[in-house]
Amino acid sequence: MDAPRETILRVASNLFAQRGYAETSLMDIASAVGVSKAAVYHYFSTKQVIYEAIVTDLLQRLHDHVAAALPPEEESAALRLRAAMRAHAEFFESNYTEYVTLLHGFGGLNRVVSDEERAIRKKYETLFRGIVSSGIASGELRDANAAVVALGALSMLNWMTRWFDPKGARRAVEFADDYFDMLAHGILKT
Amino acid sequence: MDAPRETILRVASNLFAQRGYAETSLMDIASAVGVSKAAVYHYFSTKQVIYEAIVTDLLQRLHDHVAAALPPEEESAALRLRAAMRAHAEFFESNYTEYVTLLHGFGGLNRVVSDEERAIRKKYETLFRGIVSSGIASGELRDANAAVVALGALSMLNWMTRWFDPKGARRAVEFADDYFDMLAHGILKT
Repeated sequence: MDAPRETILRVASNLFAQRGYAETSLMDIASAVGVSKAAVYHYFSTKQVIYEAIVTDLLQRLHDHVAAALPPEEESAALRLRAAMRAHAEFFESNYTEYVTLLHGFGGLNRVVSDEERAIRKKYETLFRGIVSSGIASGELRDANAAVVALGALSMLNWMTRWFDPKGARRAVEFADDYFDMLAHGILKT
Repeated sequence: MDAPRETILRVASNLFAQRGYAETSLMDIASAVGVSKAAVYHYFSTKQVIYEAIVTDLLQRLHDHVAAALPPEEESAALRLRAAMRAHAEFFESNYTEYVTLLHGFGGLNRVVSDEERAIRKKYETLFRGIVSSGIASGELRDANAAVVALGALSMLNWMTRWFDPKGARRAVEFADDYFDMLAHGILKT
């Protein structure tokens, strides 16, 4: 095994997604990897630490996927925001089970968010807010609270974890397109 | 005790919100109500059934609160949608702990949704979609997919359960106002 840490994370992610977090023990993870429990402990002190590493990794990959899909900064904010929303939806659908299970399975008031997770979430929100801010600064977009606009766009995308059906007729990216149009032009006739 | 069923639901709701669902037993609920476990079983066969009854009741109250806040149908769709979004945000903030704990504590792929819950969720979405549909039909709103517009508006409101801070500087209804403006007028300069 070349990279035991990464193997443990990948195997644990699959087990959490299939069985649920509560139903998966450190021993189950060790068995599925084919190592001793002590070998897992060498890398991770608790199941919670494994879970946190998986979530942080998933969010980092989401960020990198969206950042890589962005047109260059000299393009319009609208074009960049649309690309970001589409890339988010693509990543979400491509990683559906992992995404829904890991990012939504343990919500509620008690979920502890690590500093690493907080940092990557903030970086991702900043990416969206930056697109909106620069569009407002250039005069392309209406004067608005860029943070709230970015939050609104991300909220529509994020809520897809609660209702989107991967077996349904429409792809996630089609909803992202509709959301972008609604956000860009508004619903009132002008 | 005049209405044992309602008392059990209210007490169980508080316990779930304070301790968490997994950490609350039927015996805990019976003790807190001051009755025997058999008395609880008389009304509810399992803890899951109690939880479902609480969620359905909460969603019904949300629906009724928003429906009661709507201006009459002869008013504009914009005015009605804005009132609906504001009323949703008010209800959410007024019932914050119960709302976040119950509607978000047990997410993920495995959550079972009862027929009653499905029905009230559908009724609530239909209320929003109806406002948008009638606005499109009257020519007030752009021609769009009313279901997607309603879903977008509700997504922004629903995602507040994940980030809204009741101790923060802004009230939930202020975010609802911003979201409505963004949705109504769009972010592009026209």
